[in-house]
Amino acid sequence: MQYMVRMTVTLPPDLDPEVREQLVAAEKAYSQRLQQEGRIAAIWRVAGQFANYCLFDVASHDELHELVSGLPMFGYIQAEVEALATHPNSIR
Amino acid sequence: MQYMVRMTVTLPPDLDPEVREQLVAAEKAYSQRLQQEGRIAAIWRVAGQFANYCLFDVASHDELHELVSGLPMFGYIQAEVEALATHPNSIR
Amino acid sequence: MQYMVRMTVTLPPDLDPEVREQLVAAEKAYSQRLQQEGRIAAIWRVAGQFANYCLFDVASHDELHELVSGLPMFGYIQAEVEALATHPNSIR
Amino acid sequence: MQYMVRMTVTLPPDLDPEVREQLVAAEKAYSQRLQQEGRIAAIWRVAGQFANYCLFDVASHDELHELVSGLPMFGYIQAEVEALATHPNSIR
Amino acid sequence: MQYMVRMTVTLPPDLDPEVREQLVAAEKAYSQRLQQEGRIAAIWRVAGQFANYCLFDVASHDELHELVSGLPMFGYIQAEVEALATHPNSIR
Amino acid sequence: MQYMVRMTVTLPPDLDPEVREQLVAAEKAYSQRLQQEGRIAAIWRVAGQFANYCLFDVASHDELHELVSGLPMFGYIQAEVEALATHPNSIR
Amino acid sequence: MQYMVRMTVTLPPDLDPEVREQLVAAEKAYSQRLQQEGRIAAIWRVAGQFANYCLFDVASHDELHELVSGLPMFGYIQAEVEALATHPNSIR
Amino acid sequence: MQYMVRMTVTLPPDLDPEVREQLVAAEKAYSQRLQQEGRIAAIWRVAGQFANYCLFDVASHDELHELVSGLPMFGYIQAEVEALATHPNSIR
Amino acid sequence: MQYMVRMTVTLPPDLDPEVREQLVAAEKAYSQRLQQEGRIAAIWRVAGQFANYCLFDVASHDELHELVSGLPMFGYIQAEVEALATHPNSIR
Amino acid sequence: MQYMVRMTVTLPPDLDPEVREQLVAAEKAYSQRLQQEGRIAAIWRVAGQFANYCLFDVASHDELHELVSGLPMFGYIQAEVEALATHPNSIR
Repeated sequence: MQYMVRMTVTLPPDLDPEVREQLVAAEKAYSQRLQQEGRIAAIWRVAGQFANYCLFDVASHDELHELVSGLPMFGYIQAEVEALATHPNSIR
Repeated sequence: MQYMVRMTVTLPPDLDPEVREQLVAAEKAYSQRLQQEGRIAAIWRVAGQFANYCLFDVASHDELHELVSGLPMFGYIQAEVEALATHPNSIR
Repeated sequence: MQYMVRMTVTLPPDLDPEVREQLVAAEKAYSQRLQQEGRIAAIWRVAGQFANYCLFDVASHDELHELVSGLPMFGYIQAEVEALATHPNSIR
Repeated sequence: MQYMVRMTVTLPPDLDPEVREQLVAAEKAYSQRLQQEGRIAAIWRVAGQFANYCLFDVASHDELHELVSGLPMFGYIQAEVEALATHPNSIR
Repeated sequence: MQYMVRMTVTLPPDLDPEVREQLVAAEKAYSQRLQQEGRIAAIWRVAGQFANYCLFDVASHDELHELVSGLPMFGYIQAEVEALATHPNSIR
Repeated sequence: MQYMVRMTVTLPPDLDPEVREQLVAAEKAYSQRLQQEGRIAAIWRVAGQFANYCLFDVASHDELHELVSGLPMFGYIQAEVEALATHPNSIR
Repeated sequence: MQYMVRMTVTLPPDLDPEVREQLVAAEKAYSQRLQQEGRIAAIWRVAGQFANYCLFDVASHDELHELVSGLPMFGYIQAEVEALATHPNSIR
Repeated sequence: MQYMVRMTVTLPPDLDPEVREQLVAAEKAYSQRLQQEGRIAAIWRVAGQFANYCLFDVASHDELHELVSGLPMFGYIQAEVEALATHPNSIR
Repeated sequence: MQYMVRMTVTLPPDLDPEVREQLVAAEKAYSQRLQQEGRIAAIWRVAGQFANYCLFDVASHDELHELVSGLPMFGYIQAEVEALATHPNSIR
Repeated sequence: MQYMVRMTVTLPPDLDPEVREQLVAAEKAYSQRLQQEGRIAAIWRVAGQFANYCLFDVASHDELHELVSGLPMFGYIQAEVEALATHPNSIR
């Protein structure tokens, strides 16, 4: 099942640069693992903002929550989650 | 270039059923043509709402506007458009 | 899987009383069938508003959309859908 | 009487991990006691957010306020409270 | 138990004057009956708006909903309901 | 003249407990003095929130501002003020 | 006492031109009478909108409500009212 | 002096097509005259919406209001006006 | 030309009292100078809030920005600026 | 292609003055370079706010994101990005 999750990330500008770097690296590794597993179907950067659209493809709400709340940056993230049904006009 | 467009459709409940049917059919044909052309990369229904996420893949803002404003239901649509950049964590 | 759906219903005050009565009756029959099937786990009236919380228990986003968009009053409804995961503190 | 309370919890990311752990544990114990007493009828996690829906079943507004404001995390919580009446379509 | 209900009334400007007059008269009679019964403890006009604060004093959410949804103007009203607990500083 | 003032109080969770206690005590003394003087006609706690409705009864806007801005917790308060006129349906 | 009232006027575009003209003329006469009486201290047009700021100077909330709700266009107006106290930096 | 005006246009979908055509033509002629006069410095379509950014360059607020309120479509327009000062980083 | 500027001031409650006092004094001196020059035509306190309406009367947007951004408290201020045109009903 | 980007900048009032100065200087140099390259077509200050409209003219969303996220003040900026299509009434 697919969920569209729009995430706005607010890292404090005065965050220790090293901590920031580790967070960014950890987030990248975490995200790419989920992409390789197909549990993140796609991820896009919202141009001009520290925000993204992330298309999750998982089996349940619990799994979605586990993955989103497991993001290294979760404490700095405001997530809006929308459950996606099949669109009647979709040819896929 | 990709744009995420979230569309909320508000058809008046007392719209002539025939007009509604024609609109829905025209919208389907229009959308499916764009999907076949690859100009709509994907479309999802927001579960529980007469709304959708539509991922456009076009060459310019003008083309995006032409396609969205050309939707048969455009007069009944509130569209939020966000330009999508490549996400640094994306493996695609 | 469970979804919390908050629905605000806006029936035009000048709606033909007969049409209103049919809608209300059809909505009741539809809702009670889903409750008997266990696909609506519970439904509450928001005190003071023509609005409700409806706890759906279904197998997929598609099924949720089918049920919500199938509501006789759907054309008059603004629905906010939130996917519910198991709460770590829940004893159920 | 039942109240639907949607709570968004904002714990500072740089909160001392020990303090966080104690808060989470205290919140769990507190919540589970109220569930055993039947004063919290159910609690769900909003998938993807540090937020929950909590269905309180208590005798008065005062009791509701006492329980919500007594939550160990109350200082970090934004609560939206809605009083729930019996829905005319409910079969319970 | 007390509820603060803020009601915004939107009567269509082109409503038949007679219908408007009947509504206003019916609303007045209804409201004054509830005031005499003590179920509306007080009602104030929000200066400059067709809106009011109405302090209900009733035994349950169901009773509140019955009274608010029974208002002759209910179809034209947007109501915000807040349950009121005893304030620790109140001397009453 | 009467004003309905809805106040949301946001005390930092990490406020020194002693400072918090002094503030709460000072706020109580201040509020109760105004209630005894009749300048606060009533005060209610919004159930589930650190917020209140406070019905001021004073002679002028200046006096209202003096009293609200004189609250010991004023620096932590977001106040929404609405001037209240006599409601045509009020029996008081 | 002074009140700042920001009014947004929404006249239906298809309003009978004659009705519109009468409304505009009646509003002008009404407003200018109140200005001559000093009960409207000043009125400004919000540039680019069918909206205005109107500074009322009256003796009570009741009088304010009487004057605002007496505006010929009141049924088409959304008014935001703020009570104005003397500013400590004002030299008037 | 320059003003950035963001206009959202809401034409009723069931507007008589001839009326719509006349409005669109009149709006175009009006806008292009102001552009030739240099009083509209630039106009852009917001991609995907019946909305635009319009950069006015006029001598006063009165002139701005006269031009915006003179738009043939003014009755269908929600305008947000922001006064633009010279940016300290601008090289123009 | 006139601008209505609504300013909400948010001074941190734990701001050093001396710094606060200097800010308040500097703001007063600055504001009163502009009032004497006629560049602030009037200033009102929004009753119950640390906010004000300030009516500027200056020659250009640049001058407005220079004056507002020059306020000693500018860093703590959220300003909403609206350009004011002459109202057709104004008798001044 | 053109994008209208409205940026609100929130620098902490207690930011080290030297850091502030460096940020402002770096932002100016960065912005002016992009203006000389034609990648920022124009930039305006929103009068009365620490905010601006910035008209970008770049080849892709990726380039827009690279430039906006590369702003020295990016960590303190809330950006709203709108893609601009050619307006049918534009004479340019």
